[in-house]
Amino acid sequence: MIDLYTWPTPNGRKISILLEELNAQYNAIPIDIGNNEQFQKEFTKISPSNKIPAIFDHETQTSIFESGAIMLYLADKYDKFLPKKSYWITMEWFMFQLTQVGPILGQAHQFLFYHPGQGEFVENKYIDYTKRIYETLNTRLKQRKYLGDEFSIADMATWPWIARFERHKIDLNAYPEVLRWYHSIAKRPGVQKGYNVVGEFEKIPLV
Amino acid sequence: MIDLYTWPTPNGRKISILLEELNAQYNAIPIDIGNNEQFQKEFTKISPSNKIPAIFDHETQTSIFESGAIMLYLADKYDKFLPKKSYWITMEWFMFQLTQVGPILGQAHQFLFYHPGQGEFVENKYIDYTKRIYETLNTRLKQRKYLGDEFSIADMATWPWIARFERHKIDLNAYPEVLRWYHSIAKRPGVQKGYNVVGEFEKIPLV
Repeated sequence: MIDLYTWPTPNGRKISILLEELNAQYNAIPIDIGNNEQFQKEFTKISPSNKIPAIFDHETQTSIFESGAIMLYLADKYDKFLPKKSYWITMEWFMFQLTQVGPILGQAHQFLFYHPGQGEFVENKYIDYTKRIYETLNTRLKQRKYLGDEFSIADMATWPWIARFERHKIDLNAYPEVLRWYHSIAKRPGVQKGYNVVGEFEKIPLV
Repeated sequence: MIDLYTWPTPNGRKISILLEELNAQYNAIPIDIGNNEQFQKEFTKISPSNKIPAIFDHETQTSIFESGAIMLYLADKYDKFLPKKSYWITMEWFMFQLTQVGPILGQAHQFLFYHPGQGEFVENKYIDYTKRIYETLNTRLKQRKYLGDEFSIADMATWPWIARFERHKIDLNAYPEVLRWYHSIAKRPGVQKGYNVVGEFEKIPLV
């Protein structure tokens, strides 16, 4: 059994979607970041950077923080969604999510959605960088169904971030390959089930 | 033989330092990002997000982009610096670099160093987040020599970012554990050799 400490954010959803897709047994435990629960002493012990998600695997008595490390741990434990024959291609696009899609779109949320009005320079910087990320994904998805050679942790890591397209001021119709990919993944029962696991939050936005 | 496409940035230096520490045979090929060479068509083929570093391994005919994927590839190929017995602990701190240390300090470079004056809200946001990252590292390094159980890719990924402490408006003396760790790694011949591999750029800054 795995304890998943989470909240309905893109990084939290990566893990609940992966756990559902793996048919894994888990308890979802809410850490309400709106109430700063991620700074509680007990949580800091398993997540020293005070971020959700984190897991505790009772079977191996292992705790893991950082969504990227958790996804690799689960893909390894269940031997699924990180195929050996396309391992490095999958890893490249998984890493693109971890270092660019997540961090840059996360900052775009800050300056385009939560705290707009910080000046044209700041807003344009994030609008431009956000578009560049969508363009890179759109180019990648031309003539391929998924970011790697098959449905993988690269898609599951990236998809919950794209589900925030409204906060990025992005019209998904302008990125037709991303839109097709987004819809095809949104239909998966595991994705739908894993989208809200600690309460009834917003539904999957569709275009 | 490995071709390394790089420039003297923290992400570029991660790989040249790792290659030196591995005693690997490689050619360092400059991609001058000041001249937008990362957008050239030939480079886009191996790095579709137009970022350095990228590698091409002639032995396996494999190209890899994303510094995190490259480091995992090299640690796997040479079976070094990602020890099996502390694999997940090392991976957690490696991921902390990829998703937080790199992206947030990278944005801090933008708003505290290259383009200051974007308003108190923006500057304070990056000053606060930067301090939080240094505090997390300082807490981690209390009573331990390295981020994982031994010198690893987690340290080699993080160290070149901390070498930019001046751009972060950080006094390293305020983070004594980070300072000790920083100096101990700065002394390594592989780190010194890997710091500048495509020309004579700035020296390793010391406190």
